[in-house]
Amino acid sequence: MCDHCVMEAVKGKMLDRRNFFKGVALASAAAAVGGAATPVVAAEINISNGKPSDLTHELHENFPTYFGKSGVSVEQLYKFKKDGFNLNINTINEHTGTHMDAPLHFSADGNSVAEIPVENLFCPLAIIDIREKAAASADAQVTPDDIKAYVSANGPIADGACVAMMSGWDKFTSGDKFRNADDKGKMHFPGFHIEATKMLLEETKSVGMAVDTLSLDYGFSADFATHYAWLPQGRWGLECVANLDALPVKGATLIVGAPKLRGGTGGPARVMALS
Amino acid sequence: MCDHCVMEAVKGKMLDRRNFFKGVALASAAAAVGGAATPVVAAEINISNGKPSDLTHELHENFPTYFGKSGVSVEQLYKFKKDGFNLNINTINEHTGTHMDAPLHFSADGNSVAEIPVENLFCPLAIIDIREKAAASADAQVTPDDIKAYVSANGPIADGACVAMMSGWDKFTSGDKFRNADDKGKMHFPGFHIEATKMLLEETKSVGMAVDTLSLDYGFSADFATHYAWLPQGRWGLECVANLDALPVKGATLIVGAPKLRGGTGGPARVMALS
Repeated sequence: MCDHCVMEAVKGKMLDRRNFFKGVALASAAAAVGGAATPVVAAEINISNGKPSDLTHELHENFPTYFGKSGVSVEQLYKFKKDGFNLNINTINEHTGTHMDAPLHFSADGNSVAEIPVENLFCPLAIIDIREKAAASADAQVTPDDIKAYVSANGPIADGACVAMMSGWDKFTSGDKFRNADDKGKMHFPGFHIEATKMLLEETKSVGMAVDTLSLDYGFSADFATHYAWLPQGRWGLECVANLDALPVKGATLIVGAPKLRGGTGGPARVMALS
Repeated sequence: MCDHCVMEAVKGKMLDRRNFFKGVALASAAAAVGGAATPVVAAEINISNGKPSDLTHELHENFPTYFGKSGVSVEQLYKFKKDGFNLNINTINEHTGTHMDAPLHFSADGNSVAEIPVENLFCPLAIIDIREKAAASADAQVTPDDIKAYVSANGPIADGACVAMMSGWDKFTSGDKFRNADDKGKMHFPGFHIEATKMLLEETKSVGMAVDTLSLDYGFSADFATHYAWLPQGRWGLECVANLDALPVKGATLIVGAPKLRGGTGGPARVMALS
């Protein structure tokens, strides 16, 4: 989708967002437009013989982005051979690579990435495996039934959890399949269905949502419904997460090394896990 | 110290670095100039009822820097009121705020920040408290005697550890005291003495070094002796760490949310701990 198309879609969405939220019995009573404070839901952290995993893609100038343009440029300011040390200055679009969406990304005054409580950066990780249906259709989404099946097999989603979609899309970052744009420029990759997002808000105390694709919403979405439902409620998102398949679907602890830039709407994060 | 002075000092240092290292019986046999591979020393991680702490300063355009110039600029590309979402593009000097020094920062071909093994981003944290002597003299350094005293009181430094200097300097980031430049532009803040650095290399299997000041070397240093001894050996450093005084001097687990930018010489990191 071109920049213009995205912007028009977002503007249209803004106009009817108030009506949209009238029908949603959200767990938080805070106004969606203004942005709710991030709830501090400190998870229990007990780790024995923790094995570290890296859930972060290496970031570089050609890493695929939502808008289709490079999100990174690097200027070598000092070079070892000439100057005795190496030092770069990097210019980075906040929503590039494995990165966080802070509440402020889709709200007027939600928490910036620097304001997310540190307690919410350590999370029990619940991994919803939709690889089979994602392989069958790039437009697959995490639905309420997927969450019900997870809970049925693994028990309730823990307080303070991050709920992650494992679609298998992290294996496609080196090619066009990651954006998977069609002839009209519309992208096709998996994401969270708005009804699953509402279920997480209403029935769990999860604080984060993660996807191994470019967006919390599936690529074909024209309205960012999941972004607008989730982020203004003080929750955060992670996009372009890698290597979820190295972890158990329940029992790992996610650790989000989010940037702490004042006023940041998100940013490249070092996402790791202990299991 | 002005940029020019720094560069001249570094160049002088480069010329006699080979001789310097001839006298040092380093734990690693790798050449200092070329940069040793980062040793993977996986620490034991056992955390019961872990309490998260944030050791990261909020980064902003006026955060003090080694060179005295702003290291951050922010461009607001999309604004919620107009566009329906917020998104910024940030230009950041890699060595700004609470940040990592990768081996590549002071070596020709050491590991970039993206190449540091994830196992080395989870570390037993040994905190050397030199607040008393730092309060008496801004030129105080961590010496071999400080390390010996720590070991005597707390037992050996664990394999895979990060050894941190707690000078109390993290309380000064809002004023001139953090750089503490004199009339000649020379800075005065604490750091690791070269002899303490050698001791850590020779007698421990620590992988990281952290300071609550602007540099691993003390501010008055003209030769970056500690940088040149430590980083080319495949070790990393953290500078401008905050809130070490919230942790026990032994027993906390450091978690380094280092950026994973290809070829990065370091970068702002989300540094956290569980204790």
